Amino acid sequence: MIDQPLAKKAAQNLKKLREKKPLIHNITNYVVMNTTANALLACGASPVMAHAQEEVVEMVSFAGALVLNIGTLTPYWIDSMLKAGKRANELNVPIILDPVGSGATTLRTESAKRLMNELTIRVVRGNASEVLSLAREGSRTKGVDAMHAVDEAAEAAKGLARELNTTLAITGPVDLITDGNRTYRVSNGHELMGYVTGTGCTATVITGAFLAVDNDAVQATTTALAYYGLAGEKAAVRAQAPGSFQIALIDALFTIDEKQLEQGARIRFLSEVTGDPVVPT
Amino acid sequence: MIDQPLAKKAAQNLKKLREKKPLIHNITNYVVMNTTANALLACGASPVMAHAQEEVVEMVSFAGALVLNIGTLTPYWIDSMLKAGKRANELNVPIILDPVGSGATTLRTESAKRLMNELTIRVVRGNASEVLSLAREGSRTKGVDAMHAVDEAAEAAKGLARELNTTLAITGPVDLITDGNRTYRVSNGHELMGYVTGTGCTATVITGAFLAVDNDAVQATTTALAYYGLAGEKAAVRAQAPGSFQIALIDALFTIDEKQLEQGARIRFLSEVTGDPVVPT
Amino acid sequence: MIDQPLAKKAAQNLKKLREKKPLIHNITNYVVMNTTANALLACGASPVMAHAQEEVVEMVSFAGALVLNIGTLTPYWIDSMLKAGKRANELNVPIILDPVGSGATTLRTESAKRLMNELTIRVVRGNASEVLSLAREGSRTKGVDAMHAVDEAAEAAKGLARELNTTLAITGPVDLITDGNRTYRVSNGHELMGYVTGTGCTATVITGAFLAVDNDAVQATTTALAYYGLAGEKAAVRAQAPGSFQIALIDALFTIDEKQLEQGARIRFLSEVTGDPVVPT
Repeated sequence: MIDQPLAKKAAQNLKKLREKKPLIHNITNYVVMNTTANALLACGASPVMAHAQEEVVEMVSFAGALVLNIGTLTPYWIDSMLKAGKRANELNVPIILDPVGSGATTLRTESAKRLMNELTIRVVRGNASEVLSLAREGSRTKGVDAMHAVDEAAEAAKGLARELNTTLAITGPVDLITDGNRTYRVSNGHELMGYVTGTGCTATVITGAFLAVDNDAVQATTTALAYYGLAGEKAAVRAQAPGSFQIALIDALFTIDEKQLEQGARIRFLSEVTGDPVVPT
Repeated sequence: MIDQPLAKKAAQNLKKLREKKPLIHNITNYVVMNTTANALLACGASPVMAHAQEEVVEMVSFAGALVLNIGTLTPYWIDSMLKAGKRANELNVPIILDPVGSGATTLRTESAKRLMNELTIRVVRGNASEVLSLAREGSRTKGVDAMHAVDEAAEAAKGLARELNTTLAITGPVDLITDGNRTYRVSNGHELMGYVTGTGCTATVITGAFLAVDNDAVQATTTALAYYGLAGEKAAVRAQAPGSFQIALIDALFTIDEKQLEQGARIRFLSEVTGDPVVPT
Repeated sequence: MIDQPLAKKAAQNLKKLREKKPLIHNITNYVVMNTTANALLACGASPVMAHAQEEVVEMVSFAGALVLNIGTLTPYWIDSMLKAGKRANELNVPIILDPVGSGATTLRTESAKRLMNELTIRVVRGNASEVLSLAREGSRTKGVDAMHAVDEAAEAAKGLARELNTTLAITGPVDLITDGNRTYRVSNGHELMGYVTGTGCTATVITGAFLAVDNDAVQATTTALAYYGLAGEKAAVRAQAPGSFQIALIDALFTIDEKQLEQGARIRFLSEVTGDPVVPT
């Protein structure tokens, strides 16, 4: 059963985003910078990419949210993330972390854990392997696109969210969002998103934009992922191959209106505390 | 009243560009490298991106113009820009500066000013906040996309162009080009350009390409911006959302012919010396 | 006369690639990262971009092939390439080198030569000037898009392939592939590929993906370039300008099926040993 109040909230968040046009500060990977900047513009936000240690503290002070993405990390970039993140924490600017490839190499896993340890991260968005790597020793992913089943990850995620004291968003064919207390699933999206680079990173920045207008992290993340997944569905109506799909996806982020989002969001509430889903999926 | 001689000059510059295919050396930001390389190829130029301090002096010696863009600056990159720029000045290779986000952070403002001070810059292209930040203390922009009204900027720009001894191009809904003596406005363009990342940076590289074939900086800049704005208009006929618009814009740069440019360029001459516009806008 | 067995092999390689989905580790330039990641996903491979010296040795151990591309090189990145490459050699992971702009600056030429000297490179893919610069002193290219005639390069390439003990792929209107013994030409492709940045770099990564499923370097390279060139032809049916062509090219990599590739591959066998072509071109 669709969670209608949250579908309505999704539409309200999108409206607020387009009115407020928050600045989203990204310290992210080279591969997706153009894509995520365009996605942020299309959804109504104002992106800035800035990583120099000399300016990140100043830049983040203007931001509505800070996006940290370790996709092409080096120690310099991680240090920049820490500097920006500490200032963001002081100013209560929400931080979202995309631990790209965490679990694949020691540098990625340790850097992601270090960011989790030294900063207060509002939301972590990744695939199942990446998110699970933040806790489990010895997890290894096949590159950054590998996945454990979302189902396998759900219970672990609730526990991990509590352990890490954050909201986790595990995205895949079905997205799972949990802070260890409230748990939601979003079943919007399209399989072509798996054939375009940066679609995960884009889910992260859209969530960052929603965090800038909604203080409830679980709600902001769930509504953002419904919006983004719906854009994927709309894009797939127009485009059946990944090149044109990537373009249609940006277009859809721009053209989706609040009514369409309220009607199209497929959000299900699973549980208020750990336990069986109250709604079968 | 449209400036017909300059519209004709625009067409001639485009023709020369496509014949001569000048190498444009870019030291630019990560976000737009792909976009601006494609824009340069589409308009007929030959782009190269090179920033290593070990090679920029050599690379710029083959170039018809040098584009400096501080969008994702670090001190290393600024030093590379200074090395390349000094050699460009020795060889009389025109330099165009895009002071992305100048005014937003101290690093950006000071780096832009340092480039202005240590190099002879032929043209500066930015939005109003960025350009004005080169002079005024205490100006702060909301990210890199913020704008003061072009009108507010016009008189300041003329004075600033004289102070900085360069040609300024302040782009927005209407573009203002001035060297402090001659002043032009270009009213080509489309509002969707504001929803695509790197459209400002692309205006800069197109201007760089025109500078490689036209020694008159005001004329080269004005004609380049008319061509680029006209491409935006053509793109908007085909595409109504930013993803497909970005693609259509590259296509339009490629397909616009000289006749279309001569007929479509909306360039107005404002004044030969400081003073009121001779043509109301 | 079309080499039918190799056309059939092209289809088999594409099938194997889509089944095996090998991880391709790229240490490449900023301009094309998004494009080549998308091309790899579209053809069925799984891309990762990773350049930090702290992780490249670990990352390459999961890879089916390693792509080295010096398009925006610095000494740090070359050192990363050497570290990753040495480990790749130990593990027998095939390496393909794209010597972007070699011949244009001393840094590029010397870096490319150093990679050739210190690593065992399975395939080098470049335009004629770039490939020839690996041997000839004093060659200078006009940027990275310049070309000597492929014909001029053929005999030199055979000798150079033997001297360097590698497979060379010189791409242009007609592609030449040789290991100094077997020599092939591929005449697939479309002239619009010359107006899109990163089309050469994309040829390289597609070849890298084929190397991950075919140990015969000449065969893997030849079939990869036929597949990629055919994608260019299909794209040009849909798109007549470079923006939309770039998108259609990614789509075509995704949609081409094995039968289309077997029928469309225009591969000609030239010679088993140095000498005149056995088939006129």
